[in-house]
Amino acid sequence: MGTDTDRQRILDIIANITPLDSVAMEQARARQQVLTKPADSLGRLEELAVQIAGITGQAVPELERKAVIVMVGDHGVTVEGVSAYPSDVTAQMVSNFLRGGAAINALARHAGAHVVVVDVGVAGKIEESGLLSRKVAPGTANMACGPAMTEAQMLAAIRVGIDVLNAQADQGLALVATGEMGIGNTTASSTITAALLGVEVARVTGRGTGIDDRQLAHKVQVIERALATNTPDSSDPLDVLMKVGGLEIAGLVGIILGAAARYLPVVIDGFISGAAALIAASLCPLVCHYLIAGHLSGEPGHQLICLKLGLTPLLNLKMRLGEGTGAVLAMHIIEAALRTHREMATFAEAGVSTREEQD
Amino acid sequence: MGTDTDRQRILDIIANITPLDSVAMEQARARQQVLTKPADSLGRLEELAVQIAGITGQAVPELERKAVIVMVGDHGVTVEGVSAYPSDVTAQMVSNFLRGGAAINALARHAGAHVVVVDVGVAGKIEESGLLSRKVAPGTANMACGPAMTEAQMLAAIRVGIDVLNAQADQGLALVATGEMGIGNTTASSTITAALLGVEVARVTGRGTGIDDRQLAHKVQVIERALATNTPDSSDPLDVLMKVGGLEIAGLVGIILGAAARYLPVVIDGFISGAAALIAASLCPLVCHYLIAGHLSGEPGHQLICLKLGLTPLLNLKMRLGEGTGAVLAMHIIEAALRTHREMATFAEAGVSTREEQD
Repeated sequence: MGTDTDRQRILDIIANITPLDSVAMEQARARQQVLTKPADSLGRLEELAVQIAGITGQAVPELERKAVIVMVGDHGVTVEGVSAYPSDVTAQMVSNFLRGGAAINALARHAGAHVVVVDVGVAGKIEESGLLSRKVAPGTANMACGPAMTEAQMLAAIRVGIDVLNAQADQGLALVATGEMGIGNTTASSTITAALLGVEVARVTGRGTGIDDRQLAHKVQVIERALATNTPDSSDPLDVLMKVGGLEIAGLVGIILGAAARYLPVVIDGFISGAAALIAASLCPLVCHYLIAGHLSGEPGHQLICLKLGLTPLLNLKMRLGEGTGAVLAMHIIEAALRTHREMATFAEAGVSTREEQD
Repeated sequence: MGTDTDRQRILDIIANITPLDSVAMEQARARQQVLTKPADSLGRLEELAVQIAGITGQAVPELERKAVIVMVGDHGVTVEGVSAYPSDVTAQMVSNFLRGGAAINALARHAGAHVVVVDVGVAGKIEESGLLSRKVAPGTANMACGPAMTEAQMLAAIRVGIDVLNAQADQGLALVATGEMGIGNTTASSTITAALLGVEVARVTGRGTGIDDRQLAHKVQVIERALATNTPDSSDPLDVLMKVGGLEIAGLVGIILGAAARYLPVVIDGFISGAAALIAASLCPLVCHYLIAGHLSGEPGHQLICLKLGLTPLLNLKMRLGEGTGAVLAMHIIEAALRTHREMATFAEAGVSTREEQD
């Protein structure tokens, strides 16, 4: 897998991404109009049913196999003291995922979704079984001093995401949620967001795992230093990703592109997943139609990303945990949309008077 | 069941409603602090776990049996032409509920909740089996010309709600959602809201099943006429309920009071359920602690009710269907809160470093 091969594979995937199926969407809209309820009264559930019809090409879609793909990587920038937790916690939390003790495990069991944990770049050692080991490097370099990744690492990490998505899709995956873990990755995501949206660092930088005011001011300074050191090209999303991103974020870019190319809806989690979506959509704007924003994160940069991508998050529960938790929670809403679309009786079937009959 | 007996029963129920269990809440808060996640990062899920600990008196609660109780009644005021649908639709939709073809059925199946349909006051005939027949009257009188109910009817309908709730609780019900059906019941709810909150009718009157501008102006006039004719006493919630309410709304008041008295969390659906909650909370302010606002309805009066009751809806999906749909959808979030609270590993159990160890 050389750099050129990886780059070509990514370009091929992007070339496969198409607009939504407008015929299926029109059929889904027509069905919504005759179900036993006032027109439009299911609000966003109706919009979701129509969008997923467009993504899958089925007027009455059914998404059986669900998974959250949790990409994990470490960040060299943590040596600058940007997080409330030590870097070791990345590997410790991966072990927690594999033993089923984390929030994402509880929420995935509740949603009936598989948890697929992928090591794209963990620095520490993980002993538990069940991990997909696709380590590109043992963490990124410190972006405050130079590029976080080499071009080859960045492309390889995207390629990991594409390959994992394709393997899951081959096994019947129908609805995918993005998840991640990596101490320091709100710092990387804020830097990506500031670079790609051209906004002030302070506007898109939050408290991550819970730093105080002094630490937050320091985090902003570190990000400003990373931008000054690397001067990422805001017109080139891959340059931004390579210089100030993360291995797990690159992996998520691959998941998102891969899913869109396979006609799968992708539920985006919070800020870090949003930064990956921003890169994927900058590479290929059609990607946006395949995205569902699961929830609005408490991290301040996330709202700007959603605005840019034209996404309105389904949930706003003041969550800011990552791991894919908000995305998996939103799967209940997405399935609710599909179940009402599929299972409700029409006015004719139920013998219920319509407005027209009354008029 | 005379009027005095019903009134005494309601007063007894109210006397049984207590503040939440602060010890269980403190234990739940302490547990949330040691689960493997940054403090407070699960946002409203954490708040829900603590609230339900307080309601049930269990530090780590589990709510197995769930039901949505759909109270149904007709409204005499429909002769004034306030709805987009004919009154017959109430009975037709009850048949649809009993055959499993309505939105509430699909969403309840998705949430694993039972659907309990109670006829408190349907005008039409229903042939399907499975209905709880507790009809107090075949619909209310036209409130534009006089009181919607007699005092005896209003008290009997509340009593129906209390009795149904108690029967369900005796069978192990642990989490209840309120639902309703009744053509014309946004008109009744707007009138209740205007009377109890002392706000202009136009501010709390919406399009219900989907009326146009002209019909909306007419609906506002009808409500103003009902208020002028009946002059409900805004300091007496039962006077308001009797004069401008509905049989199914009175039934919901009974469900809500009964649930609080049995230490059960109650998920409130949208505007009509909110109007019932407003009456219940006006009778007994402690009730508010037992309420969870499932979603924010598109009906304009609902937000004012939530503000008054100090409730922040869990979901905002532009739904305005009623039936209990928003409440049942919110059950997924509530269960997610309890599953993370119950199932997540602590820092010590998972061997994950805490912030303190780092400091």
